[in-house]
Amino acid sequence: MKMRILVIHGPNLNMLGKREPEIYGSSTLDDVNARLAKEAKELGAEVEFFQSNSEGEIVGRIQAAMDSAEGILINPGAYTHTSIAIRDAILSTGLPVVEAHISNIYKREDFRQRSYVSGVALAVVSGFGAESYSLGLRGLVDYLKKAGS
Amino acid sequence: MKMRILVIHGPNLNMLGKREPEIYGSSTLDDVNARLAKEAKELGAEVEFFQSNSEGEIVGRIQAAMDSAEGILINPGAYTHTSIAIRDAILSTGLPVVEAHISNIYKREDFRQRSYVSGVALAVVSGFGAESYSLGLRGLVDYLKKAGS
Amino acid sequence: MKMRILVIHGPNLNMLGKREPEIYGSSTLDDVNARLAKEAKELGAEVEFFQSNSEGEIVGRIQAAMDSAEGILINPGAYTHTSIAIRDAILSTGLPVVEAHISNIYKREDFRQRSYVSGVALAVVSGFGAESYSLGLRGLVDYLKKAGS
Amino acid sequence: MKMRILVIHGPNLNMLGKREPEIYGSSTLDDVNARLAKEAKELGAEVEFFQSNSEGEIVGRIQAAMDSAEGILINPGAYTHTSIAIRDAILSTGLPVVEAHISNIYKREDFRQRSYVSGVALAVVSGFGAESYSLGLRGLVDYLKKAGS
Amino acid sequence: MKMRILVIHGPNLNMLGKREPEIYGSSTLDDVNARLAKEAKELGAEVEFFQSNSEGEIVGRIQAAMDSAEGILINPGAYTHTSIAIRDAILSTGLPVVEAHISNIYKREDFRQRSYVSGVALAVVSGFGAESYSLGLRGLVDYLKKAGS
Amino acid sequence: MKMRILVIHGPNLNMLGKREPEIYGSSTLDDVNARLAKEAKELGAEVEFFQSNSEGEIVGRIQAAMDSAEGILINPGAYTHTSIAIRDAILSTGLPVVEAHISNIYKREDFRQRSYVSGVALAVVSGFGAESYSLGLRGLVDYLKKAGS
Amino acid sequence: MKMRILVIHGPNLNMLGKREPEIYGSSTLDDVNARLAKEAKELGAEVEFFQSNSEGEIVGRIQAAMDSAEGILINPGAYTHTSIAIRDAILSTGLPVVEAHISNIYKREDFRQRSYVSGVALAVVSGFGAESYSLGLRGLVDYLKKAGS
Amino acid sequence: MKMRILVIHGPNLNMLGKREPEIYGSSTLDDVNARLAKEAKELGAEVEFFQSNSEGEIVGRIQAAMDSAEGILINPGAYTHTSIAIRDAILSTGLPVVEAHISNIYKREDFRQRSYVSGVALAVVSGFGAESYSLGLRGLVDYLKKAGS
Amino acid sequence: MKMRILVIHGPNLNMLGKREPEIYGSSTLDDVNARLAKEAKELGAEVEFFQSNSEGEIVGRIQAAMDSAEGILINPGAYTHTSIAIRDAILSTGLPVVEAHISNIYKREDFRQRSYVSGVALAVVSGFGAESYSLGLRGLVDYLKKAGS
Amino acid sequence: MKMRILVIHGPNLNMLGKREPEIYGSSTLDDVNARLAKEAKELGAEVEFFQSNSEGEIVGRIQAAMDSAEGILINPGAYTHTSIAIRDAILSTGLPVVEAHISNIYKREDFRQRSYVSGVALAVVSGFGAESYSLGLRGLVDYLKKAGS
Amino acid sequence: MKMRILVIHGPNLNMLGKREPEIYGSSTLDDVNARLAKEAKELGAEVEFFQSNSEGEIVGRIQAAMDSAEGILINPGAYTHTSIAIRDAILSTGLPVVEAHISNIYKREDFRQRSYVSGVALAVVSGFGAESYSLGLRGLVDYLKKAGS
Amino acid sequence: MKMRILVIHGPNLNMLGKREPEIYGSSTLDDVNARLAKEAKELGAEVEFFQSNSEGEIVGRIQAAMDSAEGILINPGAYTHTSIAIRDAILSTGLPVVEAHISNIYKREDFRQRSYVSGVALAVVSGFGAESYSLGLRGLVDYLKKAGS
Repeated sequence: MKMRILVIHGPNLNMLGKREPEIYGSSTLDDVNARLAKEAKELGAEVEFFQSNSEGEIVGRIQAAMDSAEGILINPGAYTHTSIAIRDAILSTGLPVVEAHISNIYKREDFRQRSYVSGVALAVVSGFGAESYSLGLRGLVDYLKKAGS
Repeated sequence: MKMRILVIHGPNLNMLGKREPEIYGSSTLDDVNARLAKEAKELGAEVEFFQSNSEGEIVGRIQAAMDSAEGILINPGAYTHTSIAIRDAILSTGLPVVEAHISNIYKREDFRQRSYVSGVALAVVSGFGAESYSLGLRGLVDYLKKAGS
Repeated sequence: MKMRILVIHGPNLNMLGKREPEIYGSSTLDDVNARLAKEAKELGAEVEFFQSNSEGEIVGRIQAAMDSAEGILINPGAYTHTSIAIRDAILSTGLPVVEAHISNIYKREDFRQRSYVSGVALAVVSGFGAESYSLGLRGLVDYLKKAGS
Repeated sequence: MKMRILVIHGPNLNMLGKREPEIYGSSTLDDVNARLAKEAKELGAEVEFFQSNSEGEIVGRIQAAMDSAEGILINPGAYTHTSIAIRDAILSTGLPVVEAHISNIYKREDFRQRSYVSGVALAVVSGFGAESYSLGLRGLVDYLKKAGS
Repeated sequence: MKMRILVIHGPNLNMLGKREPEIYGSSTLDDVNARLAKEAKELGAEVEFFQSNSEGEIVGRIQAAMDSAEGILINPGAYTHTSIAIRDAILSTGLPVVEAHISNIYKREDFRQRSYVSGVALAVVSGFGAESYSLGLRGLVDYLKKAGS
Repeated sequence: MKMRILVIHGPNLNMLGKREPEIYGSSTLDDVNARLAKEAKELGAEVEFFQSNSEGEIVGRIQAAMDSAEGILINPGAYTHTSIAIRDAILSTGLPVVEAHISNIYKREDFRQRSYVSGVALAVVSGFGAESYSLGLRGLVDYLKKAGS
Repeated sequence: MKMRILVIHGPNLNMLGKREPEIYGSSTLDDVNARLAKEAKELGAEVEFFQSNSEGEIVGRIQAAMDSAEGILINPGAYTHTSIAIRDAILSTGLPVVEAHISNIYKREDFRQRSYVSGVALAVVSGFGAESYSLGLRGLVDYLKKAGS
Repeated sequence: MKMRILVIHGPNLNMLGKREPEIYGSSTLDDVNARLAKEAKELGAEVEFFQSNSEGEIVGRIQAAMDSAEGILINPGAYTHTSIAIRDAILSTGLPVVEAHISNIYKREDFRQRSYVSGVALAVVSGFGAESYSLGLRGLVDYLKKAGS
Repeated sequence: MKMRILVIHGPNLNMLGKREPEIYGSSTLDDVNARLAKEAKELGAEVEFFQSNSEGEIVGRIQAAMDSAEGILINPGAYTHTSIAIRDAILSTGLPVVEAHISNIYKREDFRQRSYVSGVALAVVSGFGAESYSLGLRGLVDYLKKAGS
Repeated sequence: MKMRILVIHGPNLNMLGKREPEIYGSSTLDDVNARLAKEAKELGAEVEFFQSNSEGEIVGRIQAAMDSAEGILINPGAYTHTSIAIRDAILSTGLPVVEAHISNIYKREDFRQRSYVSGVALAVVSGFGAESYSLGLRGLVDYLKKAGS
Repeated sequence: MKMRILVIHGPNLNMLGKREPEIYGSSTLDDVNARLAKEAKELGAEVEFFQSNSEGEIVGRIQAAMDSAEGILINPGAYTHTSIAIRDAILSTGLPVVEAHISNIYKREDFRQRSYVSGVALAVVSGFGAESYSLGLRGLVDYLKKAGS
Repeated sequence: MKMRILVIHGPNLNMLGKREPEIYGSSTLDDVNARLAKEAKELGAEVEFFQSNSEGEIVGRIQAAMDSAEGILINPGAYTHTSIAIRDAILSTGLPVVEAHISNIYKREDFRQRSYVSGVALAVVSGFGAESYSLGLRGLVDYLKKAGS
C-alpha cells in the first residue's frame, strides 16, 4: 500500500496568491497542491488536501487522519500561535507531524514567535516560500520510510 | 419539574478512551455519559450531553442553555486556556457552571495552568479521572438544591 | 454606485439586550442594526450585517468582503483578544476596518486590554455604548469619501 | 442653558499641521478648533479650547472645568502614557471625559499602548485623524443628552 | 481493616463560621468535621482530623500519616500559596493527596492563584463551599478503592 | 472601659538592640515596649505585647485578639513579605491594624518591597526607627476614637 | 532659632475636601494646613506651605528649601509614582524628607504601589487620612531634635 | 551665517556644583556654559542656553528651536527617563539632537537605564563629567558641517 | 577551647533515608550526624545538631547560636526558598554560615533555584549527597581557623 | 561556474555520532558531510565544510564567504542562542543563509527557543535529524536558482 | 590505574592573585594548582590543568577529556553565565563535572546568578575562596570512588 | 613618557566600510585607525590598535594592557551585549575604559540595548559614526590628564 500523507492548510491560506504577495508569493493554493501531489507521487506517496478557516474543523480532520494517513504535513497559519486544541488533536493521533510555514515566522511580530504546534511536531520548516511544503513533505516521507523499515 | 443539567465536552474529548490512556484513562465518552446519566437520575436530575471541537458551537450551546437547563457541567478541554468567548457566553447566561478536568491540569504544561473559565465558574474539579465529572455533577446538583430551597 | 459597508458582530453579540444590561445596555442586536441601516442611508452608504460565534466563519466573511464592500465595521467581541486569524483575514483583504466596542474595554480585565485587531485597523471606538457603532460608521464613511475623492 | 464642553489639547498639539504630516495630517490646531466649534453649534453645544505643554496647567484646567463645563474632550498627547496627575484630576471633577487621538495609538511604539486616562474615561476614539475629535464630541454630547433626560 | 483518611485543615480554618461568612459560609469546623465523619462511615472509611496554624506542625502531621493513613484530604489554607515544606512533606510520604478549597481560589487575588500543593496532589476541588471536602473525600476513597483492587 | 491595643512583634525583633544597630538602633524590645506602655497610658489606652518567631503563633494571637482588643499594632518583620496566613488572620478578625517598620523598608532589598499586610492594614508607618511604633500607636488610637464617637 | 519645616502638597491636593470624600475625607487643604501650623507650634517648629500641580514648580520649591528649612514633609500626590525629578531634587538638598499619603496607597491600583520618593525619604506614613500629615510632622521634628542634639 | 546650537539643561541642573559633587563635580552651570560658549566659538558656532525644571517649558523651548537653531545639545536630566513629551517635541522639530549626561547613567539605578530621548537622538555621550557637553557639542557641530556640505 | 559548630537541618530532613532515596540517598539523619561528629573531631571541632520542621524554631535556634557557636552549617530544606526570617536571623548573629544541600538544587524545579540564604551565607555546597555536609563542615572549619589566626 | 555553498557546523558538532545518540543520531560529521557533498553534486552545486568550537573563528569564516560562496548553510549549535556576533557577521555578508538543526529545538529547554540567527536567516529547518541539512541545502539551492534566473 | 581529574579554569582566572584581591584572594593560579596537585596525590588521584580565555578552546578541552579523564573540576568564570556551548560539551562527554567558584556568586550581580553549567553538573561549590577547588576535588574523587566500587 | 591608549575593535569591525554603509558609513577600519593615530599625536598620546573576532583574544589583550597602556578605548561590537568575560577583564586591569559605538545602539533591536561593558566603563559615546572614536579618545585623554595632574 502507498504511504498516505494528509496536508492541512489553516486559516487564510485559501487566500494564497491573492493577498500580500510580497510576503506569501504569487502561487495559489491550487498551484501549491498540484505541485505537492506531483512530488508525492515521485516519492512514492499520495497526498490528500484539506483547508479550513475553522479551528474545530481542523481538529476534527486531524482526528480522522488516525485511520487514513501515516503522517500529516500542516501549515496551521494563525492557529499556530493560539490553538492548544490543534496541539491536543495532534497528540491524540500519535502520527508524526511536520509543521511548515511559507514565511520565516521568526522574522515577524512577537506574537508569531510562539508555536503551540512545534512542541509536538516531528520537525519544522519555515521561510522557503511555497517550497517549505515540498521540503517538509520530503522530510516526512523520508522519516516514515526509515521508521517503517 | 426535574433539575436539568447540560454537560458539555470540549475539543478532542470525543477521542476519550482512544488516545493517551496513561493521561485520560480507558473509558470512552459514551461510557462517561452513560454513567453520568445514571448518577444524575439517582440525584433527581436529568442530563443532556453535547460535544464539539468548535469554539463557536460551544458558545452557541451555552447560550441556548439559558432556556433549557438550570446548570452546566463543562470540561472545556483545550479551550479552557484560550477562549474568552466561552467565558463571555457563561457570563451571559447567568447559570451556575462547574468546570471539570479529567487530569490534574496544575501538574501539566505552564500554558495549561491558566483557565479563562475558572474565574466565572462556581467551582472547579480536576484530576480524579472520569470521576471528576461525577463529583462535579454531585456538587452542582447539591448547590442547585440549596439555592432552590 | 453606493458605498457598501460590512458590519460584523462577533461572539455573544447575538445576546445583546438579553445579557448583562449594566455593561451592554438594553438594545438588541436588531435594534442596533436597524439604527445603523438608517444612519448609513443618511450618509449615502448601505450596510450588510453578519453575526457569528465562530472564528472561522468570521474569517471567511471578512475574506468575502474583498469583492462586496469598500470597508468593514467590526466588533470582534471576545475574539478581539485571542484571534490572530481575524487579524490576518483583515490584512488579506486590504480594506479599511474600524473596530468598535460597546463598553470601554480599557476599563476591564487585563486580558481585554490587548487587541490583535487594533494594530491593523484604521481606527478604534470604544465605550459609547451602542453609539460606538454609529460613530465608527460615520468615521469610516468619512474616511472612504476622502480617500475616494 | 447650552451644554458646555471643554476641549483640551496636550503637549505638542500646538505643532499640528507643522510636524510629521504623514502621521498627524495637515490641518492646524486652529483649523481643528474652528471645525469643532461649528459642529458643536449644530449639536446645540458650545466648546471652549485649551492647549498646553505643561502637565500641571492641564491638571489645573481640568479642575476648573468642574464649575464651567458638563463634559471634557481631551487629547492628552504624550501625557496619555505618563501622567497619573491628569488621571486624578479627571477623577476629582466627576465629569464625563472622552479621550481622542488623531493617530491609531495601538499601531505605534509599545510605550504608547498604555493610557492612564482610558481607565477613567467614558470612551475612547483613536485613529480617524482630526475626525477623531468630531466623533468624540458627537459621542459625548449624545451621552450628556441621554444622561440629562 | 478500614481505609483511613487524614483530614488536615490549615491556618485560620479554626475560624470557620466565625469570619467572612460571605466567602466561607456559616458552618463551623466542627460542623464540617462531623459531616465528613458521617460520610466517611457511609463510604467505608474512617477519618482523623487535624487543624493547625503552624506550617511546621502540618509538615510533621503529614509525615506521621505515612504509618497511620492511606490518603490525605487537605485544605492548606494560606500555606497553599507559600509552603514548599508542605509540598515536600507530601512527596516524602508517597500518599495520594486531595487538595480542597472552600472558595473558588481562581476567582480571588493573584497571589492565591499559585498552589505549591496542586503539582503534587492527586486532584483538586475548589469552590463548592464546605461541600468541597465531601466531594474530595468521595473522590479520594473512590481512587483508593480502585488502586487497592 | 479602656481602649485595648495588641502590639505584635514578628520574628527576630527579640534581637532588637542586639543586632545591626546601624539599621535597627540600640533600644531593646523591652525599652520599646516600656515606652509604648507609657505613651498608651497618656493616650487613654492600654497595650498588651506579644513577640514570636513563629508564623503560626502570630496567626493564633491575632485570632485571639478578636475578643480582647480594639486594634492591633504589628511589625510583622520578615513575615511582612511572605505570610498570607497573617494577612488572612487579620482579615478574619475585622479589627483595624496598623503596620509599623523600624527601618524604611522601601530603601532595602527588592524582596522587602512587597507587603502582604499593607493591603489589609488601615495604615503603614515605616522608617522612623522605634518612633514608628509610637506614631503608629497614636494614629491607631486617634482612628479608634473617631470611629467610636 | 525655630526649627523650620516646609510642607509640600502635590497635584490635585488643592481639591481636598471637594473631591472623592470616601477616599480623601472632608477636610479642605486649608483645614489641614491650619491644624499642622498649630501642631508645629506645639512641637516648637514653624511650617511653611506650598501646593502646586506642576512638577517643575515642586522641584524648584524643594531646591529653594535648602536655605530656608531643616526638613520637608511632602505628599507628592500622583508625582509619587512618576517623578524622578522630584527624587533628584530631594537628593540635591540633602534635607531629611518625610513622605505622607492620606489614603493607604498600598491598597490601590498597581501603578500607585511604586514610589520614586520612598527610596530617598527618611520615612513614610500612609493611610491615616489627614492625620498622616500630623504623624509625619511629629516624626520629622522628633528626628531633627535627636539629630540636632 | 553662523551655525546655531541650542543647549538645554533639564531639571536640577541649576544645582550643578552645589549638590552631590562626588557624582556631578564642582563646576557650576555658569562655568559649564562659559566653557561651551568659548568652545563653540572656536568651532565656528554660537550657542544659546536654556535651563528649566519644567517639562512643559522644555517642550516649548524645543519647539521654538525649529526656527532659531540648526541643532540641539540636551541633558534632559531626570526627564530622560520619564518624558515622552520631550521625545515628541524633538521629533516634531526634525532637528539633530545630541543627548549628554554628566555621569555614566548606565552605572546607576535601574530606572535610569531607560531613555525616551536616545531613541530619537542622533547620538549619546555619557560619563565624562562636564566634558560630556564639550564632546557632544563637538560631535554635533562636526555632524552639521558634514550634513551641510 | 574547641571550635563549636551548630548543624541545622530544616523541614523534612528528619525523613532522610526514608523518603525518595533516588534523590536523597539511603543514609538516615542519624547516620549523617554520626559521620559529621566523627569528622568534626578529626578537624578539632565539636558539633551540635538541631532539626526542626518549624521556621520559627529554626529562627530561634540560630539566634541562640550567637552565644554557643563560632559558625553554622545549615541545610534549610524547603525554607531555603521561602524564608526571609531565617535570612534575618543569620544576619542578626553575625556568624559565618555555610549552606549545604544534598541534591543539586540547580537541577530541580524553578522555585528551588532562588535561595534567600545564599545571599547572606559565606559559601554554598550543593549536590554531593550527604557528602555535601562533610565538605561544608570542612570548608567552614578551614575558614574559622584562618579567620582566627 | 558552479554554485558554491559554505556549510558551517558550530560547537560540539564534531562530536556527532559520538554523543547522545538518542538526540543526535549515530551518523558522524564526516558521514553527514559526505552525504551533503553527494547531494550538492546532484543539485549542481559544490559545498565546502567548516567546523569550529570558536565563535570568533565562525565569525571569520562567514566574513570570508563573501568572496567564495553564494550561500551559507549553518547549524550554529549552541551559538544559535547566545551569539550576536554571528548574527552580525551574517548581516555583513549579505548572503542568503539557511539555519539547520538536527533536533527539533522547539521541544527542548527554554533557553534553546531563542535564536539570534533566525531573524536574519532566509529560512529555518529543525528536527529531521541529519536530514535537516539535506533539506536545508535543497531549499537554499532552489532559492539561489530562482534568484539567479 | 590512577584516577585522573581534569581541572579547567575559565577566562580571567590567569589573573588570580593579580586582580581584585578583596574578592579573589592573593594566591596565584600556580599556587592554587600546586596545592590541588598535592591534595590529589593524597587522595590517590592525579590532576591535569587547563586555563583559557577562549570559550571554543574550553569546549575543545572538555571534549578531549572523554578519553583522558574520569571527571572534571571546572570554574567556568564568566562563561558560567553565558555559555551554552560549554554546557553542551559537558553533556557530550558524559563525565561527572563539579563546578567551583572562588567567590559566592549568589551574593553578586543579578546576571551572575544564572549558571548554564549547574544544571548539568554533579555538584556545585561556591564561596570558600581557593578552598572551593579543594572541596570540589575531594567531593568529586569521593563520588568517583563510590561509583567505581 | 607619552600617554599610551589601547584601541580595541570587536567582532565584525574588520568589515567596516565593506558592510551595511547605511548604518556604519564608508570609512574602513584602516581609515579610522589612521585618523585616530593622527588625533592622538595632536593630543600628546600614542595609540596601539587591536581587532579580533574572538572573545577570548579580546579578553587576553585587555589583560595585557595592564602593563602597556594607561587607558583603553573599546568598541566591543556584538560582545557588548553578551560578554561578561570582557567586563571581568576590564575590571581586572583597573584601567579607565571608554566604550564607543559607531551607530546609536539605543535606536536598534532590544537585545542591543543592554551593555555588559557600560557598567564598568568610565564613559560611553554612541551614534556619531566613526567620529565616536575621536570623541571617546579625546574624552579619555582629557580624563587621564586631569587624573594624572
